[in-house]
Amino acid sequence: MGMIGGGPGAFIGPIHRIAAEMDREIELVAGAFSSDAGRSRAAAETYRIDPERAYPSMEAMFAGEKARGDGIDFVAIVSPNYHHLPAARAALAAGLPVLSDKPATSTYAEAQELAGHVAAAGLPYGLTHTYSGYPLVREARARIAAGALGTVRKVVVEYPQGWLAGEASGKQAEWRTDPARSGPGGCIGDIGTHAFQLAEFVTGLQVTQLLADLGAVVPGRLVDDDCSVLLRFENGARGVLLASQIEVGEMNGLRIRVYGDKAGLIWKQEVPNTLTINTLDGRTEIVHAGGSQLGPDAASRTRTPTGHPEGYLEAFANIYRDFAAVLRGEQAPLLPGIDTALRGMAFIATAVAASRDANDGKAGWVKLTV
Amino acid sequence: MGMIGGGPGAFIGPIHRIAAEMDREIELVAGAFSSDAGRSRAAAETYRIDPERAYPSMEAMFAGEKARGDGIDFVAIVSPNYHHLPAARAALAAGLPVLSDKPATSTYAEAQELAGHVAAAGLPYGLTHTYSGYPLVREARARIAAGALGTVRKVVVEYPQGWLAGEASGKQAEWRTDPARSGPGGCIGDIGTHAFQLAEFVTGLQVTQLLADLGAVVPGRLVDDDCSVLLRFENGARGVLLASQIEVGEMNGLRIRVYGDKAGLIWKQEVPNTLTINTLDGRTEIVHAGGSQLGPDAASRTRTPTGHPEGYLEAFANIYRDFAAVLRGEQAPLLPGIDTALRGMAFIATAVAASRDANDGKAGWVKLTV
Amino acid sequence: MGMIGGGPGAFIGPIHRIAAEMDREIELVAGAFSSDAGRSRAAAETYRIDPERAYPSMEAMFAGEKARGDGIDFVAIVSPNYHHLPAARAALAAGLPVLSDKPATSTYAEAQELAGHVAAAGLPYGLTHTYSGYPLVREARARIAAGALGTVRKVVVEYPQGWLAGEASGKQAEWRTDPARSGPGGCIGDIGTHAFQLAEFVTGLQVTQLLADLGAVVPGRLVDDDCSVLLRFENGARGVLLASQIEVGEMNGLRIRVYGDKAGLIWKQEVPNTLTINTLDGRTEIVHAGGSQLGPDAASRTRTPTGHPEGYLEAFANIYRDFAAVLRGEQAPLLPGIDTALRGMAFIATAVAASRDANDGKAGWVKLTV
Amino acid sequence: MGMIGGGPGAFIGPIHRIAAEMDREIELVAGAFSSDAGRSRAAAETYRIDPERAYPSMEAMFAGEKARGDGIDFVAIVSPNYHHLPAARAALAAGLPVLSDKPATSTYAEAQELAGHVAAAGLPYGLTHTYSGYPLVREARARIAAGALGTVRKVVVEYPQGWLAGEASGKQAEWRTDPARSGPGGCIGDIGTHAFQLAEFVTGLQVTQLLADLGAVVPGRLVDDDCSVLLRFENGARGVLLASQIEVGEMNGLRIRVYGDKAGLIWKQEVPNTLTINTLDGRTEIVHAGGSQLGPDAASRTRTPTGHPEGYLEAFANIYRDFAAVLRGEQAPLLPGIDTALRGMAFIATAVAASRDANDGKAGWVKLTV
Repeated sequence: MGMIGGGPGAFIGPIHRIAAEMDREIELVAGAFSSDAGRSRAAAETYRIDPERAYPSMEAMFAGEKARGDGIDFVAIVSPNYHHLPAARAALAAGLPVLSDKPATSTYAEAQELAGHVAAAGLPYGLTHTYSGYPLVREARARIAAGALGTVRKVVVEYPQGWLAGEASGKQAEWRTDPARSGPGGCIGDIGTHAFQLAEFVTGLQVTQLLADLGAVVPGRLVDDDCSVLLRFENGARGVLLASQIEVGEMNGLRIRVYGDKAGLIWKQEVPNTLTINTLDGRTEIVHAGGSQLGPDAASRTRTPTGHPEGYLEAFANIYRDFAAVLRGEQAPLLPGIDTALRGMAFIATAVAASRDANDGKAGWVKLTV
Repeated sequence: MGMIGGGPGAFIGPIHRIAAEMDREIELVAGAFSSDAGRSRAAAETYRIDPERAYPSMEAMFAGEKARGDGIDFVAIVSPNYHHLPAARAALAAGLPVLSDKPATSTYAEAQELAGHVAAAGLPYGLTHTYSGYPLVREARARIAAGALGTVRKVVVEYPQGWLAGEASGKQAEWRTDPARSGPGGCIGDIGTHAFQLAEFVTGLQVTQLLADLGAVVPGRLVDDDCSVLLRFENGARGVLLASQIEVGEMNGLRIRVYGDKAGLIWKQEVPNTLTINTLDGRTEIVHAGGSQLGPDAASRTRTPTGHPEGYLEAFANIYRDFAAVLRGEQAPLLPGIDTALRGMAFIATAVAASRDANDGKAGWVKLTV
Repeated sequence: MGMIGGGPGAFIGPIHRIAAEMDREIELVAGAFSSDAGRSRAAAETYRIDPERAYPSMEAMFAGEKARGDGIDFVAIVSPNYHHLPAARAALAAGLPVLSDKPATSTYAEAQELAGHVAAAGLPYGLTHTYSGYPLVREARARIAAGALGTVRKVVVEYPQGWLAGEASGKQAEWRTDPARSGPGGCIGDIGTHAFQLAEFVTGLQVTQLLADLGAVVPGRLVDDDCSVLLRFENGARGVLLASQIEVGEMNGLRIRVYGDKAGLIWKQEVPNTLTINTLDGRTEIVHAGGSQLGPDAASRTRTPTGHPEGYLEAFANIYRDFAAVLRGEQAPLLPGIDTALRGMAFIATAVAASRDANDGKAGWVKLTV
Repeated sequence: MGMIGGGPGAFIGPIHRIAAEMDREIELVAGAFSSDAGRSRAAAETYRIDPERAYPSMEAMFAGEKARGDGIDFVAIVSPNYHHLPAARAALAAGLPVLSDKPATSTYAEAQELAGHVAAAGLPYGLTHTYSGYPLVREARARIAAGALGTVRKVVVEYPQGWLAGEASGKQAEWRTDPARSGPGGCIGDIGTHAFQLAEFVTGLQVTQLLADLGAVVPGRLVDDDCSVLLRFENGARGVLLASQIEVGEMNGLRIRVYGDKAGLIWKQEVPNTLTINTLDGRTEIVHAGGSQLGPDAASRTRTPTGHPEGYLEAFANIYRDFAAVLRGEQAPLLPGIDTALRGMAFIATAVAASRDANDGKAGWVKLTV
């Protein structure tokens, strides 16, 4: 694997490296970590890879690796959003499969262009919606698909954070609050898309309409940092999607509740190793990661016995495990791919539009179409 | 105290009785528990009051009690919503102060009429928004008022229940899902008003605009049973109010989160004896009911040492304690009164209208005015 | 009901009053609240009872009440431990049933004397082991009795508190740390007996042997304030009983875990409205107070629907409800009585002896006999 | 790194591999995974290492690796307990540093022998007490060392499990319940030592005396499966150590509470990313992994921002990180080494003896000496 982005100061690059390598199916061997050659080499040292394979540009990496017998088999794109499309386009053109951080691109139009490149290249494309890699998220999806909840009626998905409640300082905060680098959505793109993908992933239902209120709460902020979105799903189910980066004290509180006519379930990312199921007769069951009550997919996604907490890195590694399977030519139907990419970017665009319309006194509900 | 409503099968009548008497400032001595004389007498037996003082109508009670030297000093109205206005009007006309269950009336127009009666009578009127009686809700309000959170930016208040996810059976469910007895709002009136009052109570801020999605989810239901409302407060703060009665497995999960530019706080009714405060510097403090970190109001509202759970009945008793103070001519500024009644009924009417507008493709945000 | 003790500054007197009156079966009408006539009258005012019925001594109360047509039917003893025996003896001699705070007496010898008085008088005697009044404690007992856990193998009961970690100041702390008023056991008598009673109550098994380590941790303390006791039950099951009053930050953390060969259960006083049941096949079920999964005894002990927290006062009221039933001549088999009193006092004496023996290098396990 | 043990069916081998490689300082390249050559090769495939480097014996590995230019730099011993001493002895004799799973050996005598070999070889020796690798355990230790709790008075450490409550079936259960392979201690050696090490690690205090009750609860079991041990620390502090493998439904519930005269702290392995601190003035603070309130050691031990759960594998990787530092010649004072090994084995022997003595009616407290 070669990495694009992830240079000094990056948060997500080292996480991709750990996740990719956890099951020893993938090894990080090269990177265009930065467009500054010295910084790229410095990153290589941090990652403990051969400095020869730290390239000053992705083009150099594609060329350099092609020239080797043991060159990279795919790229992981971990640069800021605005760079996702050019990176993916170039990698696909170089014949390399792509695993990209989310959101897929800066804009929905870019995502459409990307979909064209993916189709034309005929190469694997994956999107690291990490949270759908958690074993109990997989379990939730499997149970709903099997009818455990009956007809889904209501979905509440929330992603509260507080880290941007003050001034945006530091590399991570700066590009995320700069529309030129993050795209038109701030919070809605950065974490709202995770919540959106989680809701569609777990329920197996698509969102069809939105009513939205996106705000730039911190004075001077140029992108939204607080998002409240009402949802309607294809089967008529109602939904609420809340995402915020200004809720002081919230850390990474992604959580989802799904209610059907027979039962409801609750999962929370910060305590990811339990899933709560409530049935109409008043029973509450707690399902444990690694425990005996899991279906095959979730069971195969845990690496330790029950009671040994697994977390974010292991969930991320499950995404990489799926991608490795795809690279081997196997099926990995739960790996988020280009369809998820398109839906996520359409969600951002529609939420931004719906919020503007509502504030302009125009029609409330806006259709979400891909 | 005389009770209007609360006959056999009632849930809230016995609770009012326990709450009223907990501090021994008030005693239930009479009631028009039912319009059926036999049922009213049966209720009197349950309440262990003198059967002579179980009346077949409120008019009979007013007359009978007036004739006694030790007649009632006020009435508690615990009948279904549609009956609140006639009961309060009659009681006030009979010179009796009123403590009423919520919502205050069936419609906003009725609430306006009621406000006129209250003003004309010059008698105390209180509304039992129980949850604002919890010590840590009082503490939350006090801390926000003292500036602990800085400027309030975001409020999320939720009231999930699941008890109406199936067919509405039983006395409680039946009248609540019948618009003739509950008024135009179902869930929004029954529990949405609690959430609304809690949000305004804790923040000290008024809601000025709404964007709403109210649904009647259970097939055949005639009133809303699932409500999602986006809020805007007078200072520009954003808010979300979620209330539902079809979220299977949810019991009485009222909770509120308030975020300012300095700190945030979280309180949950089902674990009411802790309040979590998070500050911008990454600290988390847990405040305990009965503990040393409470301000005077909250401290005076607990009856046991810290670690001895107090709950719903004690919170309810705190509302009665306030009302008893008002009857004695003392100030009880935190007791919900006729202004709260008007705001609550306006909230119901506005939410219903806003949801209809949004679904009709009309303007999104609707002003809330009293 | 007449109260003995509970004068100004008392913690437990007002709690007894609320608990006694919650179901309106009992009314506090008289008291010998203090041996100081003025203080007794001051207490009467706090309790809002007729000042005429505030007596300067229990003897005066017995005489005064006997002379009335509507005199008291029983006494509640809420004075410090050393006073329990003389108060109970005198009340029984005056023909009055007794509901006493725990521990029953100062010493085991006193408890034996008390048992004689109770037997001779033929009057009801009850002991307010409050925690066994919680609905889910009753549910736990019922489920174990019905075999839900299989054979009980292990019991862990803990009662951590921290309020005596510093200097013992205030009325409550002072008498509890004075062996002349509390008896030979400090913590072991004050809260260890609650834990002991809870363990025997829930499991239906008697403790037969102890291995103990009791310490007076705070410098200068004259009674134990930290207790660790290993238990053996009549069926061979092992147990651990921990009680401490010097664990800083612990409030009133009584909790019990019982494990059988089929399942285990967990209950915690500070979150009293859930009971967790784990079965050998890896399932976890949460049982909710007020919910549909309760047996008849627990169901009848809740006063509100599920999700409305009930707490310590309601549990206490359940003890009074049992006592009221006994006064009416009904059965209340779960009310702790004189047998529980004897076992509790034997437990204190045996634990003190076992700890001394272990520290003296003598035999470890000591038999507990009544 | 070369691995000894960890063949097909092993639980801990793959975990060592993930932990060792997480920070890319160490790579698993060889193994004597099984004494069956075919099984050893099968394991190599699972671990994705060169099949040439899957050896049929540790001796073959030592020789084969020595012959390579890129041979292993140390061994990780993950075989059952009885094999730890021979494996470590042979590795040290071959000039290889050792990182061993716990407990260090089968018996205390073996541990003494091992200490001699370690001293003679002058090579690094580490013991994978995983739980002391958790960031918040490090934080707890640092805060106690800095005096945040004042003088430590009381320690409660518990390690409840339930997985051996039924018949011991499967590779993991079988050797752990066979004294020939596990040593004289069952539960006390398997998890009691973890609890013991955690207590000494966090407090910085040594245990000096024990009072113990060890039982073989499951019919037919040959080693203890339920352990209750009272402790006395060098400064006079009291302690309780509970470990059990028959507590149905308990998963891996290691937890520790330490109380001083100024404050107390609580940490639980199953929710490892928070540490609770309670101070004498009634304040409760929650410290978050990855958060701003951590000291340098804990901060450097987290790999993701706060709110991204890290768990058991990351804690384990922190132990490997320390060992890698030692291999580089750096200091890693928190890495458990041969002294910890000796203390752990002495603890097992003393607890077994103390329990037998107490049951034989002999002296209670037994000294723990190394």
